[in-house]
Amino acid sequence: MDPEAFLDVANQVIKLKMFPFFDIAHSLLAALAVREDLGANAQAFSRKHPLACWLSTMLVIFAGGMVANGLLGEPILAPLKNTGQLLVGTAVWYVVFYTPFDIGYKVAKFLPVKIVASAMKEIYRAKKVYDGVGHAAKLYPNAWIIMIIIGTLKGNGAGFTKLIERLIRGAWTPTAMEFMQPSFYTKASLLASIIFVLDKKTDWISAPHALVYFGIVIFLVYFKLSSILLGIHDPFLPLENLGCAIFFGGIWDSLAKILGRGQAKDGDSKDVKKNN
Amino acid sequence: MDPEAFLDVANQVIKLKMFPFFDIAHSLLAALAVREDLGANAQAFSRKHPLACWLSTMLVIFAGGMVANGLLGEPILAPLKNTGQLLVGTAVWYVVFYTPFDIGYKVAKFLPVKIVASAMKEIYRAKKVYDGVGHAAKLYPNAWIIMIIIGTLKGNGAGFTKLIERLIRGAWTPTAMEFMQPSFYTKASLLASIIFVLDKKTDWISAPHALVYFGIVIFLVYFKLSSILLGIHDPFLPLENLGCAIFFGGIWDSLAKILGRGQAKDGDSKDVKKNN
Amino acid sequence: MDPEAFLDVANQVIKLKMFPFFDIAHSLLAALAVREDLGANAQAFSRKHPLACWLSTMLVIFAGGMVANGLLGEPILAPLKNTGQLLVGTAVWYVVFYTPFDIGYKVAKFLPVKIVASAMKEIYRAKKVYDGVGHAAKLYPNAWIIMIIIGTLKGNGAGFTKLIERLIRGAWTPTAMEFMQPSFYTKASLLASIIFVLDKKTDWISAPHALVYFGIVIFLVYFKLSSILLGIHDPFLPLENLGCAIFFGGIWDSLAKILGRGQAKDGDSKDVKKNN
Repeated sequence: MDPEAFLDVANQVIKLKMFPFFDIAHSLLAALAVREDLGANAQAFSRKHPLACWLSTMLVIFAGGMVANGLLGEPILAPLKNTGQLLVGTAVWYVVFYTPFDIGYKVAKFLPVKIVASAMKEIYRAKKVYDGVGHAAKLYPNAWIIMIIIGTLKGNGAGFTKLIERLIRGAWTPTAMEFMQPSFYTKASLLASIIFVLDKKTDWISAPHALVYFGIVIFLVYFKLSSILLGIHDPFLPLENLGCAIFFGGIWDSLAKILGRGQAKDGDSKDVKKNN
Repeated sequence: MDPEAFLDVANQVIKLKMFPFFDIAHSLLAALAVREDLGANAQAFSRKHPLACWLSTMLVIFAGGMVANGLLGEPILAPLKNTGQLLVGTAVWYVVFYTPFDIGYKVAKFLPVKIVASAMKEIYRAKKVYDGVGHAAKLYPNAWIIMIIIGTLKGNGAGFTKLIERLIRGAWTPTAMEFMQPSFYTKASLLASIIFVLDKKTDWISAPHALVYFGIVIFLVYFKLSSILLGIHDPFLPLENLGCAIFFGGIWDSLAKILGRGQAKDGDSKDVKKNN
Repeated sequence: MDPEAFLDVANQVIKLKMFPFFDIAHSLLAALAVREDLGANAQAFSRKHPLACWLSTMLVIFAGGMVANGLLGEPILAPLKNTGQLLVGTAVWYVVFYTPFDIGYKVAKFLPVKIVASAMKEIYRAKKVYDGVGHAAKLYPNAWIIMIIIGTLKGNGAGFTKLIERLIRGAWTPTAMEFMQPSFYTKASLLASIIFVLDKKTDWISAPHALVYFGIVIFLVYFKLSSILLGIHDPFLPLENLGCAIFFGGIWDSLAKILGRGQAKDGDSKDVKKNN
């Protein structure tokens, strides 16, 4: 593929229209996530509590926008004013939960459908991170940390609203905190936000803007497909373990242990750094 | 009653001044609700933790406005700037919890007092739903769902803040989620919001505006009094069961069961749709 | 000390620049508080979950501003735009948790260091309460209660975010509600807010403004040092017990008990008013 054509594709990708197909893919995966989170109980729950079921699905679909708005002092309900997205989300929710003989759910779980939807969702995610960073940059042109936070939240909002989403359904799981064990999507959104911020605010990245965007899209889609097809769940893990060892005490703790000073006397320096 | 006179009454009702009498009724029922929620422990709790007691009562009184403001990006504390309401609320709280020999509480619990206060509160509720819908319509003229959500929250805000209200008092009951088993007030506020939105945004309702409003007031007061005097708690239930059977899988589930495909194998399709 | 010189000192204090030294002291105590809240587990936790550890420390550092912003409809993330404070906070967090052989933590725990930092933090607290009251007064010139709430929250924000802060670290302690058993800092911030509001809005306090401010600084520092050095934890307690006895039912309850009417039959009127 010659560079011209590649840049051309990149420019196409950056201008892709999201509504309605990407919204359908996003809503579909959100509804599936809610249904899977309900477990074996899903069928019965959706019949007994349609309102809670609908609300928690909407919260997953609009999570990124709502959380970001909440933190930026903008109306939390504003994402709902997009009637098109709302109708798509409601239709998809209905299809996943209430079609006769559960046909909707079975089709949605069918592997090829899931792969296409997942790939589209990753393209959507890249756009959301990009828009989030841009929006925050307009409000706080010098606050990199705010841009990065908003970008990450827009990219994986549902991860951060999981507690509230479950609470709407009457379940409370305080230990399922995204910050404790960030998922791959959170880390990828964080990385993408940082790259977008660097691209926007510094001259360190000399590639054309469209290429940076396209690179992130490819990275997200590639790892999503690896995750579904090959079961590779977190390519960041080795880097993290290295980073933790150098910056967050790993080496010093080991040294201290060898020298017998043993701050970490209880021997848990061994199982440290495995999870985060 | 001839139609002219009826319309005249309706026009009177729509212009009723709420402060201070309706605020007193509203605050009284809020303080009683807090006291009853505390149970047998109320007396001791109010002596040990006056601050938590006062705060949770204020939260119940101002719940609708605070939640709606929070979701619309407006200052959550703004409802407190109404000094008159705040003083009325505080005075009522004091009377319900701290009068010598518990006279205040006993008077408030006296049936005729409770009936009058309840009727007034329903009139207040209709006004709040109406104002909520109007306010949201100004901000998002095309987002019906936001108008309906804000109207419902304004009408029964305390239902949705129950978790926070109890949390202020150190109790955490994650399963007491309003969305899981909406109360009659939530459903009535939802219905009233929908009617107000239809009245405002479409031509489907040809009755004069004041009559629509008056109709909703009568509906709310009538069912409140039925609930207190006759013990009828939820006139929506039959309609809901019908709706669930048609739209949310009831019929299909039964059909599937008869055909032996049994998605709802565990037999709980029987007790389904009872609660919501 | 002659009054002139005293007023002069007061005028100096009111103009003290907070950044960076007072921010360092504030961040240091915040990081220590997080580390102590983690208990024996702190070392291992900080290695396993650096992100949650950093986030909860930042939440403690910026708690006042974030909560106040959230309640006033301003962007919750806005305090983070102050890059200087953010870098200071991050550096202090790193020093407290990750320095080799835990030198940073040991130095911070060294009594003279802690005393100086605590005294500086109280000066900072006075300024934050003052700024909070002023900010709220600009938004709602007639709502005293909002000024008092914002002043109190700015003064002891971390007390009110403790639940969220622990939740970020995956721990949920719903009974640790500040409102139930307000700490000395909350009560002192409340008192300071009330005095600032009276000073600003009435003519009841005739002392020059700088003196009022200086008096509050001295009061806060004095009791903080008493608390560290002499173990006096709550000078408000006797006043509170008196107030509760007069206004919140204590006397009447006793009277009722003597008269044998016994609303507080279970005999807990004795242990009443000890905690709040």
